[in-house]
Amino acid sequence: MEFYDFESRLERPVKVKIPDFQTGERLNHIVFADQFTTSTIDRLGRTANRIRLLAKSTEGCRFLSELLRHKRAMLYFTQPSTRTFLSFMAACQILGLSCTEVRDPSTSSETKGESPYDSVRMFSSYFDVVIMRSKVPQFAECCAYMMNDLRQASRRSVPIINGGSGADEHPTQALLDMYTIHRAFSFHHERNSSQWTWFDELREQYPGLRKGVDGKVFGFCGDIRRGRTIRSLAHLLSQYEDVSMYFVSPQHPKLAMSSEFRKLLLDRGVNVREVASFDERIDDVPMIELLDCLYMTRFQREHNRPEDEADFQAIDFSQFRLTPRLVARMKSYAAILHPFPRDAAFGEIPTTIDADPRAHYFRQARNGMWARAALLAYLFDVDATITDYYEQYTRQTSDYNVGAL
Amino acid sequence: MEFYDFESRLERPVKVKIPDFQTGERLNHIVFADQFTTSTIDRLGRTANRIRLLAKSTEGCRFLSELLRHKRAMLYFTQPSTRTFLSFMAACQILGLSCTEVRDPSTSSETKGESPYDSVRMFSSYFDVVIMRSKVPQFAECCAYMMNDLRQASRRSVPIINGGSGADEHPTQALLDMYTIHRAFSFHHERNSSQWTWFDELREQYPGLRKGVDGKVFGFCGDIRRGRTIRSLAHLLSQYEDVSMYFVSPQHPKLAMSSEFRKLLLDRGVNVREVASFDERIDDVPMIELLDCLYMTRFQREHNRPEDEADFQAIDFSQFRLTPRLVARMKSYAAILHPFPRDAAFGEIPTTIDADPRAHYFRQARNGMWARAALLAYLFDVDATITDYYEQYTRQTSDYNVGAL
Amino acid sequence: MEFYDFESRLERPVKVKIPDFQTGERLNHIVFADQFTTSTIDRLGRTANRIRLLAKSTEGCRFLSELLRHKRAMLYFTQPSTRTFLSFMAACQILGLSCTEVRDPSTSSETKGESPYDSVRMFSSYFDVVIMRSKVPQFAECCAYMMNDLRQASRRSVPIINGGSGADEHPTQALLDMYTIHRAFSFHHERNSSQWTWFDELREQYPGLRKGVDGKVFGFCGDIRRGRTIRSLAHLLSQYEDVSMYFVSPQHPKLAMSSEFRKLLLDRGVNVREVASFDERIDDVPMIELLDCLYMTRFQREHNRPEDEADFQAIDFSQFRLTPRLVARMKSYAAILHPFPRDAAFGEIPTTIDADPRAHYFRQARNGMWARAALLAYLFDVDATITDYYEQYTRQTSDYNVGAL
Repeated sequence: MEFYDFESRLERPVKVKIPDFQTGERLNHIVFADQFTTSTIDRLGRTANRIRLLAKSTEGCRFLSELLRHKRAMLYFTQPSTRTFLSFMAACQILGLSCTEVRDPSTSSETKGESPYDSVRMFSSYFDVVIMRSKVPQFAECCAYMMNDLRQASRRSVPIINGGSGADEHPTQALLDMYTIHRAFSFHHERNSSQWTWFDELREQYPGLRKGVDGKVFGFCGDIRRGRTIRSLAHLLSQYEDVSMYFVSPQHPKLAMSSEFRKLLLDRGVNVREVASFDERIDDVPMIELLDCLYMTRFQREHNRPEDEADFQAIDFSQFRLTPRLVARMKSYAAILHPFPRDAAFGEIPTTIDADPRAHYFRQARNGMWARAALLAYLFDVDATITDYYEQYTRQTSDYNVGAL
Repeated sequence: MEFYDFESRLERPVKVKIPDFQTGERLNHIVFADQFTTSTIDRLGRTANRIRLLAKSTEGCRFLSELLRHKRAMLYFTQPSTRTFLSFMAACQILGLSCTEVRDPSTSSETKGESPYDSVRMFSSYFDVVIMRSKVPQFAECCAYMMNDLRQASRRSVPIINGGSGADEHPTQALLDMYTIHRAFSFHHERNSSQWTWFDELREQYPGLRKGVDGKVFGFCGDIRRGRTIRSLAHLLSQYEDVSMYFVSPQHPKLAMSSEFRKLLLDRGVNVREVASFDERIDDVPMIELLDCLYMTRFQREHNRPEDEADFQAIDFSQFRLTPRLVARMKSYAAILHPFPRDAAFGEIPTTIDADPRAHYFRQARNGMWARAALLAYLFDVDATITDYYEQYTRQTSDYNVGAL
Repeated sequence: MEFYDFESRLERPVKVKIPDFQTGERLNHIVFADQFTTSTIDRLGRTANRIRLLAKSTEGCRFLSELLRHKRAMLYFTQPSTRTFLSFMAACQILGLSCTEVRDPSTSSETKGESPYDSVRMFSSYFDVVIMRSKVPQFAECCAYMMNDLRQASRRSVPIINGGSGADEHPTQALLDMYTIHRAFSFHHERNSSQWTWFDELREQYPGLRKGVDGKVFGFCGDIRRGRTIRSLAHLLSQYEDVSMYFVSPQHPKLAMSSEFRKLLLDRGVNVREVASFDERIDDVPMIELLDCLYMTRFQREHNRPEDEADFQAIDFSQFRLTPRLVARMKSYAAILHPFPRDAAFGEIPTTIDADPRAHYFRQARNGMWARAALLAYLFDVDATITDYYEQYTRQTSDYNVGAL
């Protein structure tokens, strides 16, 4: 098989392709963020919550680690990545999956002239799921088509999970971002009780506040154009009602949002605004004070071309750094997210903000592990087993955390 | 210990060395393909079949994954290899062995002046089996001698498995090839029943057809001289009765079979023929139409020397590529094998052949996992446990596959 | 967080820092060799002995491998190391801990500008212990402070284990050396019985011989100045009564012991002597004949500077190589240790000595695995569970080894 064998399929619009990767409602391969409907996001979020809670006890951990002990995962990460790789690794370990990694293409048979499709088909011979990150755009998508063709020919076929392919797609990042946003807007608080809840307290200050994603205001700051995470997340958020999205980035065509992206969001009914700084006013209020959630990103300097460097010299990048003073003006419950890594030299989020309760980014990283574990449980069809065990488990315990899920 | 400590032992003929690596009939280290007698091949093949069947059910997988959970394997692969490495990894995981890999010699203590024998002895301190692939010819053999010496001195000693050493030996490849050939010539078919078997159907077309390896015609095509897999496999096949082997390769001394190799096969009673193309006639029939099994190989261009390159320009390599038209002329049950990786640029087997039922090469790759799992089970002496469980298991189930094993 | 955030804490003397890494007597992070008191060394040694014995049986192995199956370890080794890395890996596997490794910093997000503290905090999000070796002095110490700060802020915090940081500290090497010395001076012998013990036999030849570390004579040979292992081990040994330490090294300021180190040992009541060769007389007896334990080390040529090379040319390094003739003059029960790797080209311990019963260095390497497993069991608080199981287990068996522990 070669790239051109898949060409006619690749060229179709995403919406048309999605059914290829599912059987009825059920996802078989994870290729695009847009495969995640609100109901799938809810289902995976519930599973992630249950895994998270069960993992607090040794007994729960042991139950989880038995679930997929008979399965083997291949982590094929030829593009450098630590966070995605390690959280998938940890997610596999939580569920008992055996892991094997291939990271260095120089140790692979491709140096002997092997086609990358032969390599992935070989992985599918030995392992039960292939989680892959590649520099080559659409490579994961092609592998999913190959697996579909093999299944059709009654040959061995395994699920493909796209762990980030080139600049185009990173669906599991979008999933963990959605999970983090859902958790932030459930207003869980460890001191919640029948007498007191944080949400009730917040409502005294913000009377219109609702739980959930509908009606929320999201800010996105940084490398809007080149960051696939913002694009994917915005797609998923656009499925919710009455959502606003404010974008803060330099007014440079390589960095600001594309007109196609703006149009897509507007078409889906999103209230879109582009601003030049956190202080720019929207309906007469500085943008920073309006946000329910602020999604910061790193400027991906490794993608700068020589001609860009000159252009970028003229830009005042200080507008795209968060500061403790800005954070102090944000809503008390607002959630600050960052897909990480953050750039210590640039300082889009200085470490002095880390201790603020609005800083959700380390929790977000950990959520990546729970969300990916939920996804694996779903793909191997053990999420119902988790639900059953969880319900039995919570009936037996009266853990104060239970209500919070 | 140094290389020269082993020199006198290394210089002996293989036949004389083999007893050093076994106790009675039982193999302790896996160094040479010639250690595998037909009865060991049968025994390992039966174990591989049982593991393969048990692995189809979650219950069977769980049983297998408990067998060697208390053992630890070191995969010491300083020569690049994906297929051998990954299938050993998967084989270990099937049996529950913990795996640790050392692949990059630059992270090792040999940069601090450590002798490679100290390194391997260290591995044997921490792990229960050392599976190794090295660029250095006979290194695995030396390590097996070192382990023998340690055992004699009542020191800790573990099994050594040669996963390919230099150009000389690759015994587990030969094992999986034999396993694949045995399976191909058992004429198993998923529709086999008491009413209909594929073998009976074939016998109407090929009245002389027998099950098993005896009497079969094997073709070997490609890099005969430099490919250790062909040499090892031919050795093992020569143990069977009335076997023919036809070799297709350029008539160049770096590529064609050596006279020593030809003589060895003739001495063992093999019917050997060398031809220049698949169309060359043998007893008036084009060779391609006579084959029961065709073993294709890649030209190992990475071993070309500058002076070879010039020579090779004159060769018409198109004769050593399989085509759909050639496949169409092969016997309907013939098996096409390839040790993989195949060379996508050269195209010794174009992907258009992959869907043909005669294409066994992906199955062959997967068989590597089963055969290596069987070998590990044998070395750790749990193959009888597998047999017991399997017999109990098949008595309880009436799986249609059972008869096929 | 940045290095300077920890600066004021780093600058304090070790003695003052130690309480930061423990709660009461209990160690939370393993940063300095000096954290190990004689009572902790004893406790860990007893646990290591029990693990070692249990690991001899399949049943014991299975018990151990269940203990930490719900925990995940990160092995973050950016400085090359095989022995420490592999023995930690094996130790984790013995206890059932899932392992993930990060060894190549080029695959990490630090290439994207991520602070190393963000990286380690990320590891602590996904894993339950971070075992780290770094080129950067005091980096593990800083990470332990970061974890302390997170704990204080009620955030997730995990134990840090220093697997060797720059030239300054390598606490688990010191621990395994102490464990090896304790075992050597317990005079265990496999033929020990109620009728005969090796110790009683030795006492006929050496009437003053006592079990244990008190009163013993230690020799240290080689790269005294640059070897952190000697320094750490000598610190721990200085806690015992009436200990002598003789140092054999070239009289060069880059290689011989520092005056601070000499003073520290003298202050702790150690009988310190520096000699130029194994034959130099102490109280009229050649030093080699006085030793109970000889700790050999490798000259760390990779740390030579160009100006040193010239200086070192003048030194007669043959004085710092052990020979079979020297070994023959040592006490019959003396223990020869080496932290390994040894330098095959230099030959500080030629392989001809390996078979001598006084050669403990391969056993010492294997002890690294047991001592590290004991440390992990201690940090995760399952050592009492091991003791309980062990006592029950030994009550049921009458294994001849039992008495020896």
